[in-house]
Amino acid sequence: MWTQKEVTIAPRPRGFHLVTREILKQVPEVHSFRIGLMHVFIKHTSASLTINENADPTVRSDFENFFNHLVPEDQAYYEHTLEGSDDLPAHFKSSILGNAVSVAITNGELNLGTWQGIYLCEHRNLGGVRNLVVTIHGEVWEK
Amino acid sequence: MWTQKEVTIAPRPRGFHLVTREILKQVPEVHSFRIGLMHVFIKHTSASLTINENADPTVRSDFENFFNHLVPEDQAYYEHTLEGSDDLPAHFKSSILGNAVSVAITNGELNLGTWQGIYLCEHRNLGGVRNLVVTIHGEVWEK
Amino acid sequence: MWTQKEVTIAPRPRGFHLVTREILKQVPEVHSFRIGLMHVFIKHTSASLTINENADPTVRSDFENFFNHLVPEDQAYYEHTLEGSDDLPAHFKSSILGNAVSVAITNGELNLGTWQGIYLCEHRNLGGVRNLVVTIHGEVWEK
Repeated sequence: MWTQKEVTIAPRPRGFHLVTREILKQVPEVHSFRIGLMHVFIKHTSASLTINENADPTVRSDFENFFNHLVPEDQAYYEHTLEGSDDLPAHFKSSILGNAVSVAITNGELNLGTWQGIYLCEHRNLGGVRNLVVTIHGEVWEK
Repeated sequence: MWTQKEVTIAPRPRGFHLVTREILKQVPEVHSFRIGLMHVFIKHTSASLTINENADPTVRSDFENFFNHLVPEDQAYYEHTLEGSDDLPAHFKSSILGNAVSVAITNGELNLGTWQGIYLCEHRNLGGVRNLVVTIHGEVWEK
Repeated sequence: MWTQKEVTIAPRPRGFHLVTREILKQVPEVHSFRIGLMHVFIKHTSASLTINENADPTVRSDFENFFNHLVPEDQAYYEHTLEGSDDLPAHFKSSILGNAVSVAITNGELNLGTWQGIYLCEHRNLGGVRNLVVTIHGEVWEK
């Protein structure tokens, strides 16, 4: 059994944002699967998806600060600079963090750890709406 | 055909550890699949999974040293510091390295390269037992 | 419905290379799937796969330069050095960038964003031919 949907994530400021609920709200089909996988793919190269700590908001602000140190803007050797100081670092960050997450579905729910949530990592200053492809496959409950 | 199991990995010291055999021992079902994928997901935000060189142990100790340089502890700008010096860097490392791996199954075996193995990346000083969700799907052998 | 193939990528110089077409040419089966996922796995630990910007070639040369800064060669503390200065950094880069990508299939085509392409990230000076396992599963068109 397969379900696939293109969903959007409302614009967020640059930084790391918990979006588990915003995604799940748009794919209630998850609850129909007894066992399976949910694949979430972001159709952009300057924003990314990862899974990390879902509780303390300072973890997310620390992520933003750390990745700005790890991937500095405006290095002299950068060539792809016409789209702004935040563009090329956004490409690097999105490949470091990844453009997709896959999560197991168990008894109609995402089988995440207690402290895990899905992050939208917005690397642009003005990223706008972000488009995701959510693909779910697995076995549905027997009727 | 789907198989899904929660398995545990025995506690390891901080560092990078080959766990391919420890995982496979717990999911002998892999051998029933002629073709498919095995998805392994770690339900934690301070340990991660990756695939890398399975032979020389100094590769794994070099990984530990390199990622400690890449993601330093105790930076002045870190805010999420109450859980210890190793906690916030563990979160960063787990998103850089990733919380899941997917490997093709071919003729009942993981289709890894000769030099590839699955690493548990333990980023905490005392991480304890780690919980994984292993989801296998594919086509089983015809009887 | 499952399709699995081992395919090769022609040798590339060290750097980041768009290989979407070279992969798709070898798996025309993609077009048979109405809905599904394509999983591409690289069977090496010194080259990797990621998805990023498919237009401006300076993005790819900037990737090469940036990751050489992020993961320097010849650090005094490296122990695994017998295979050359480019070997250990290649292992680190391959775990940072990842050894697999998964892309949704929608109506017989990869459902990538407009600006997305699959990169082969060749981290060795002389990497040679690279072997991939492509696993496609999904629902085929009704006849």
